Amino acid sequence: MRSPIRTKRRTLPGAAPGSIITDPAAPKPVITVITYDTLDFQEEVVQSPAELAAHLNTGKPTWINVRGLGDARVIQDIGQALNLHVLALEDVVNTHQRPKLETYPEYLFIVLRTAPHGGHTSQISLFSGASYLLSFEEHDCEVLDPVRERLRAHRALIRAAGTDYLAYCLIDAVIDEYFPRLDELADRIESAEDRVLESADAELIEVIHRLRHELLGVRRIVASTRELLNAMLRNPGDMIAAATLPYLRDCYDHTVQIIDIVESQREIVSGLLDIYLSAVSNRMNQVMKVLTVMATMFIPLTFIVGLYGMNFDRSSPWNMPELGWWYGYPLLVLLMAIILAFEMFVFWRLGWLSGDGAPGKKRRKRHRKHGV
Amino acid sequence: MRSPIRTKRRTLPGAAPGSIITDPAAPKPVITVITYDTLDFQEEVVQSPAELAAHLNTGKPTWINVRGLGDARVIQDIGQALNLHVLALEDVVNTHQRPKLETYPEYLFIVLRTAPHGGHTSQISLFSGASYLLSFEEHDCEVLDPVRERLRAHRALIRAAGTDYLAYCLIDAVIDEYFPRLDELADRIESAEDRVLESADAELIEVIHRLRHELLGVRRIVASTRELLNAMLRNPGDMIAAATLPYLRDCYDHTVQIIDIVESQREIVSGLLDIYLSAVSNRMNQVMKVLTVMATMFIPLTFIVGLYGMNFDRSSPWNMPELGWWYGYPLLVLLMAIILAFEMFVFWRLGWLSGDGAPGKKRRKRHRKHGV
Amino acid sequence: MRSPIRTKRRTLPGAAPGSIITDPAAPKPVITVITYDTLDFQEEVVQSPAELAAHLNTGKPTWINVRGLGDARVIQDIGQALNLHVLALEDVVNTHQRPKLETYPEYLFIVLRTAPHGGHTSQISLFSGASYLLSFEEHDCEVLDPVRERLRAHRALIRAAGTDYLAYCLIDAVIDEYFPRLDELADRIESAEDRVLESADAELIEVIHRLRHELLGVRRIVASTRELLNAMLRNPGDMIAAATLPYLRDCYDHTVQIIDIVESQREIVSGLLDIYLSAVSNRMNQVMKVLTVMATMFIPLTFIVGLYGMNFDRSSPWNMPELGWWYGYPLLVLLMAIILAFEMFVFWRLGWLSGDGAPGKKRRKRHRKHGV
Amino acid sequence: MRSPIRTKRRTLPGAAPGSIITDPAAPKPVITVITYDTLDFQEEVVQSPAELAAHLNTGKPTWINVRGLGDARVIQDIGQALNLHVLALEDVVNTHQRPKLETYPEYLFIVLRTAPHGGHTSQISLFSGASYLLSFEEHDCEVLDPVRERLRAHRALIRAAGTDYLAYCLIDAVIDEYFPRLDELADRIESAEDRVLESADAELIEVIHRLRHELLGVRRIVASTRELLNAMLRNPGDMIAAATLPYLRDCYDHTVQIIDIVESQREIVSGLLDIYLSAVSNRMNQVMKVLTVMATMFIPLTFIVGLYGMNFDRSSPWNMPELGWWYGYPLLVLLMAIILAFEMFVFWRLGWLSGDGAPGKKRRKRHRKHGV
Amino acid sequence: MRSPIRTKRRTLPGAAPGSIITDPAAPKPVITVITYDTLDFQEEVVQSPAELAAHLNTGKPTWINVRGLGDARVIQDIGQALNLHVLALEDVVNTHQRPKLETYPEYLFIVLRTAPHGGHTSQISLFSGASYLLSFEEHDCEVLDPVRERLRAHRALIRAAGTDYLAYCLIDAVIDEYFPRLDELADRIESAEDRVLESADAELIEVIHRLRHELLGVRRIVASTRELLNAMLRNPGDMIAAATLPYLRDCYDHTVQIIDIVESQREIVSGLLDIYLSAVSNRMNQVMKVLTVMATMFIPLTFIVGLYGMNFDRSSPWNMPELGWWYGYPLLVLLMAIILAFEMFVFWRLGWLSGDGAPGKKRRKRHRKHGV
Repeated sequence: MRSPIRTKRRTLPGAAPGSIITDPAAPKPVITVITYDTLDFQEEVVQSPAELAAHLNTGKPTWINVRGLGDARVIQDIGQALNLHVLALEDVVNTHQRPKLETYPEYLFIVLRTAPHGGHTSQISLFSGASYLLSFEEHDCEVLDPVRERLRAHRALIRAAGTDYLAYCLIDAVIDEYFPRLDELADRIESAEDRVLESADAELIEVIHRLRHELLGVRRIVASTRELLNAMLRNPGDMIAAATLPYLRDCYDHTVQIIDIVESQREIVSGLLDIYLSAVSNRMNQVMKVLTVMATMFIPLTFIVGLYGMNFDRSSPWNMPELGWWYGYPLLVLLMAIILAFEMFVFWRLGWLSGDGAPGKKRRKRHRKHGV
Repeated sequence: MRSPIRTKRRTLPGAAPGSIITDPAAPKPVITVITYDTLDFQEEVVQSPAELAAHLNTGKPTWINVRGLGDARVIQDIGQALNLHVLALEDVVNTHQRPKLETYPEYLFIVLRTAPHGGHTSQISLFSGASYLLSFEEHDCEVLDPVRERLRAHRALIRAAGTDYLAYCLIDAVIDEYFPRLDELADRIESAEDRVLESADAELIEVIHRLRHELLGVRRIVASTRELLNAMLRNPGDMIAAATLPYLRDCYDHTVQIIDIVESQREIVSGLLDIYLSAVSNRMNQVMKVLTVMATMFIPLTFIVGLYGMNFDRSSPWNMPELGWWYGYPLLVLLMAIILAFEMFVFWRLGWLSGDGAPGKKRRKRHRKHGV
Repeated sequence: MRSPIRTKRRTLPGAAPGSIITDPAAPKPVITVITYDTLDFQEEVVQSPAELAAHLNTGKPTWINVRGLGDARVIQDIGQALNLHVLALEDVVNTHQRPKLETYPEYLFIVLRTAPHGGHTSQISLFSGASYLLSFEEHDCEVLDPVRERLRAHRALIRAAGTDYLAYCLIDAVIDEYFPRLDELADRIESAEDRVLESADAELIEVIHRLRHELLGVRRIVASTRELLNAMLRNPGDMIAAATLPYLRDCYDHTVQIIDIVESQREIVSGLLDIYLSAVSNRMNQVMKVLTVMATMFIPLTFIVGLYGMNFDRSSPWNMPELGWWYGYPLLVLLMAIILAFEMFVFWRLGWLSGDGAPGKKRRKRHRKHGV
Repeated sequence: MRSPIRTKRRTLPGAAPGSIITDPAAPKPVITVITYDTLDFQEEVVQSPAELAAHLNTGKPTWINVRGLGDARVIQDIGQALNLHVLALEDVVNTHQRPKLETYPEYLFIVLRTAPHGGHTSQISLFSGASYLLSFEEHDCEVLDPVRERLRAHRALIRAAGTDYLAYCLIDAVIDEYFPRLDELADRIESAEDRVLESADAELIEVIHRLRHELLGVRRIVASTRELLNAMLRNPGDMIAAATLPYLRDCYDHTVQIIDIVESQREIVSGLLDIYLSAVSNRMNQVMKVLTVMATMFIPLTFIVGLYGMNFDRSSPWNMPELGWWYGYPLLVLLMAIILAFEMFVFWRLGWLSGDGAPGKKRRKRHRKHGV
Repeated sequence: MRSPIRTKRRTLPGAAPGSIITDPAAPKPVITVITYDTLDFQEEVVQSPAELAAHLNTGKPTWINVRGLGDARVIQDIGQALNLHVLALEDVVNTHQRPKLETYPEYLFIVLRTAPHGGHTSQISLFSGASYLLSFEEHDCEVLDPVRERLRAHRALIRAAGTDYLAYCLIDAVIDEYFPRLDELADRIESAEDRVLESADAELIEVIHRLRHELLGVRRIVASTRELLNAMLRNPGDMIAAATLPYLRDCYDHTVQIIDIVESQREIVSGLLDIYLSAVSNRMNQVMKVLTVMATMFIPLTFIVGLYGMNFDRSSPWNMPELGWWYGYPLLVLLMAIILAFEMFVFWRLGWLSGDGAPGKKRRKRHRKHGV
């Protein structure tokens, strides 16, 4: 994922704050309500926000999930039904938010971003109230499905705990999704590593910069997520039970691990750039050496043969008498062979005859085996 | 916008503080007073600062807007009418201030800068008092017009709230203006990206540095604006109503988003520089390869033809008997063809015959599609 | 040790927190219990976690050491026997944790990593309770053996103090192990230094980057360890006796020294990269000089001999009368000798004839003697 | 001004602290005492420090100015007359101090440095007591003259306020002097910018580094001055009246502006270095292209003419029959023309025939017009 | 002084803390006891630590100085006599400590390092108790001698004050020693500066890196010393009299000045590296230009003379009729002269004939005069 260099705002500068302007191409919202406790579990698709009120007063933890943000009317009605601040709702539909935590008196507003998948991240917004959890998914993503499964299956902890623990489970699911993505990035980095050692083609510098940029994008999202969790840990307020805190600390730890891995990957990619530039420079050196060896070997010889191609008047004994010698030609060839041998010796001493080309791949593999 | 490397002060070193020295070329001030509440809305152009007193004691929120700073007398009179500190007024007319917040006992003094437009930013200074908002616009800019429109149209919130909310609306309008400007910058960056891949001409390095410098300028202004909002959020004092704070936090969020985008753009531009330098280096490599291939191919051949151009005395059978052979010439041509073929084979093995020139544009386009 | 760019998690995204999933290839746990006081010392291998309860209520300090993490059942049973949090246990078996301190009400949870040895670091996890110390060793490593020896031998301090001092001893043993590893790194750095001065082969850039990356890995682990100790020093709580604090401060000091040394090594390695690139550039320069000297020396001469190889009709006295001179050839050779001498003089003045090649090794050695 | 890389201490290591050792070449001190209030103004040159006591007990604000530090005796006597700490006096005469604030119980000790002028900055030291201000000027600098003028002319504010306001006026005068100096630096930067685009001569890299170093020097002094003012604003104590604080905050703002400008200038200069290196690289490229074009164009042709210069025995019909053709020579010339044309076409396609040399100056000028 | 990349520990990993293992090659300890007050001064060499007790109960300030650390027994006995913590003693004999302050209930433990002299720094450890000052000198260094002299000579302040002032005097003496060392470094930097402008030989890059590394080493020690002093100033406790604090603040200021100078020197050295690399690149450019000028000048001429060396059958009037012209040769020479002149003109226009070689030394000197 390339971190964005363009804004994606649909509101015009100077517009009144809190305008809910949705992307007409976005999927229409589907509202699912899950009510659960240790004994009970009910899952229902709700047709209109007006039906939400009935589900909220059951005294049981309630998870309202909205998938798709394509209808401003529906989003606004949900907001009114749960008494949400209009600025928070605006952030829900403007899906270019960075991960953040906003504390409102009656709920926490949490924005998350999923790990980049095929170049995209999608935004997941959570409102964590006293007895309900409201989540908005930008796209039809599968990140939250395992949590839904765990709720359906009768698992003690998740069904026994409140919506704050459910909120933790969703955050945890979003963060854990980064780990396989990082492994994909590691694959691409190692493929670029192999490539730089084999050929160092000009296209590679773009590949390296793309990796660098994507890593920066991941780093930025995860760093914001870490700050979000840090803020929750420092000021848990009374919306988060003390028993949930170690779990959030575990999440926080995962974000720190992700950042550690991303930083290591960034280091490797930076190193790749140096190796690439050095390989380009070395190849240049090799090209120049070939030219120099060839040219300097033949330049004196070519001069000599040119010398004896001159048409001086042979009637004077001073003018190139060598040409008249009986063994003139063999002697000259011998002379040229000696010159050539001397030059070869000098080049060999200078180490120019060995082809210290691109470093082989085999050696590299050995390093990696016990490397990581 | 290039961030300034020169001062634009008109006061001399050692002058008394609080000197109001205006730029004679600046437009003359036009004072507009808007008085409003939920029911009422009055807009009036005032001829002289002396008339302001009448408008201030209505008990309704009052917005005094001054467009143009070209008359020191008028500015000073306004300052006296509203009892403003002379140093704040000095900052109003010295329009090279960075965005900042200064807290005076009876009002907040806020300096903003509009997004760069055609290389310029203009300064907007706000004095936010208990019942009035005084704004100074350096130039005839249209940034604040949408807010004026929203006041005129009967919109509930802006008319119902006090001048602190109006101040927020102006700050918000100024900040939102940055988003389209960032998109313009993104266009220029992408055009430079295409150019670096096509030709990497020498002029490009200047384009890259100009972009870098402009991005730094934007970053600096927006970072100051963020600090300003942060200071307001941390110490709202009693000049800002609690209900206005979430709106200011939203503004703060926007500045963080702008800085995120600017940082991404800076990354891309830094990458461009590397790609440019690498392209220059690769082209050099290619030039050298052509020279080396051509030279090394013909150097031995030229030596050979020179050899048989020598004028050794043919009466000796030792002197170049090849010249007398019946098939001498065809054999020599064959020898040279073999040498040439061998050299071509070596070059092919070294990979010097493939023209790994500038990376194509098509591939690049593919990346970008799912890139941003 | 290369700092990891891949995750090594065995749990799937979205799995319930606290899943103890062990690596089936890991060695099976061996539980050793040591009970000691100034008079007494008992060491026993325990077959099952169920037996632990008997050892814990002796009122004496008890060190439970678990070597090998290959059986989830055993780890879970130990956790239950000592009432440990399931998230901490999860971190014990997921052995890719960075060093950290987590404070639980009844114990401190400390994660350490041993100095890299053959490219690996292994994780050591400590639970330091009021009267027991529980340690988990990932591999069969010998880092903790000297502490065991000191306990066995009747040494006053370690036997007299509580488990907090024992925890310090283990931390100290882990940290001290870094010093010989740093010396190994220093050996490799100096070997690379010698190599860059001798040959600057293309493979060296990879060696340099590997060193850089390993140093970064060490730095990261030790920096986390330093933070861990800093956290213990700032909030010792009542789990750590005041008398133990100076010892922990000493440990903290050692981590600072390690980081100092690593930073110095990183500096040297960065300098190596510059020297390497400069050596490549200098060698290129030398190659070019040889080519230029040879080519420019012979180019005019080759032109001259070509000139007199032309076949102009000698019947005209204007056409190359030199060819008919009695001393034509000797005069021409003289002319060419003069040209050559002049060129040699120019090259000598330009300093191109001196071979300012790779800087010698002898001088270097001298520097180093009083260097470090 | 190059920031110093040498010490200028006159005291030996291990000397007793508080030794007042003056530079014998420095000008002798001239003591001027100004006593003033709203009604009265007296200026007097005092011959000896002993006379100071009389001036201090008038109950009016008193400004004692000492110009020149060339007499240790006088400095010490002044220190005793005003009961100043010997370490502060030592700093007065060791004029290599960075700007700083030291709070003593009965006075503030402030060290300032003037803007660099002709490569020098001079130190101005202030002691701001309850009713007196003592200032030491290292050289005969004119920075403080405008303040003296404002005192002489009957200006309300400066005469009505106490010595804390006077101290502010001196600080302000020193800081304001930086603005014209920055404009001089901007001139030099722009002249270097023009030069890099025109010729990029080798001397330029030194000019760039000199500018970089001078900017660093200015930045360091002004950053210290900013810290000084920040310290005064945070802990005004009772030596500074509340009414003076907004003025100091204004000063603080000026230092921030200076640092902003210096940072922008540093950015430009860094960019210059990149443009310079890129220009050197591009010129190299151009040189190589000329060589390659010339060499590859003529190398095959020279081979061909060499070919037909061979002396094969023409009696065999296989030996170079072309030489005997009626139109042999014209056909050969045609062949060579075709080869040449083909090569020119290839070079044209490669873009090597266009001279994309140094970027023109005209384009640049266009940028700058709306640039700053 | 190169900052160390190796450990110098003599204790094995896992050894019990507080082991006093001395370097057998170190000089044997010589214990000197100085007792003094305003009236009295006694200096005595003590044979064994057992005699110390008698000197400590005099009620007068006592300075115990230990020169040489070569006897573990003696060090341990001193530690017991003064009741010092075993970990502090361990740091005294492991003389690779960085400067630091450790606060023990009854004394301050201060570690200092002398300025590097011939590549070495030596450690000075101070224990500053209520009525005694114990100092350990690693080597026979003369840094503390001036303080001893000042004590011997009857100087009021040092004899009147307590051991805290004496501790200050020692710290001050150690810090002041850095100033002459910095001047030596400045000499070496300026010599490298001259050298880079004259020749830019390959050895220089090593000199530059050595300087960089040494400056880093100095910076690190002095930065630790600054932190030490900062810690003393922030928490003076009751071991340091209030009157001593301004003196320590003065010391602190000196460390800040040293760091300022070191940073300036580092800047210069960084600049040197750029100038060096640019000089290498420029020289390469020059070499290439010579080759290109020579080659392109003679390549067409050599082709022409080759052309008229061909052996076409002259019986055809189409075959090289020029060879038969009466003025053929002179015309050809004229043609070649014209070609040469045209080429020279082109090279002159391209500016390739001017030798813009290494920048002269004279110009540089001028800069420096008013530079620093």
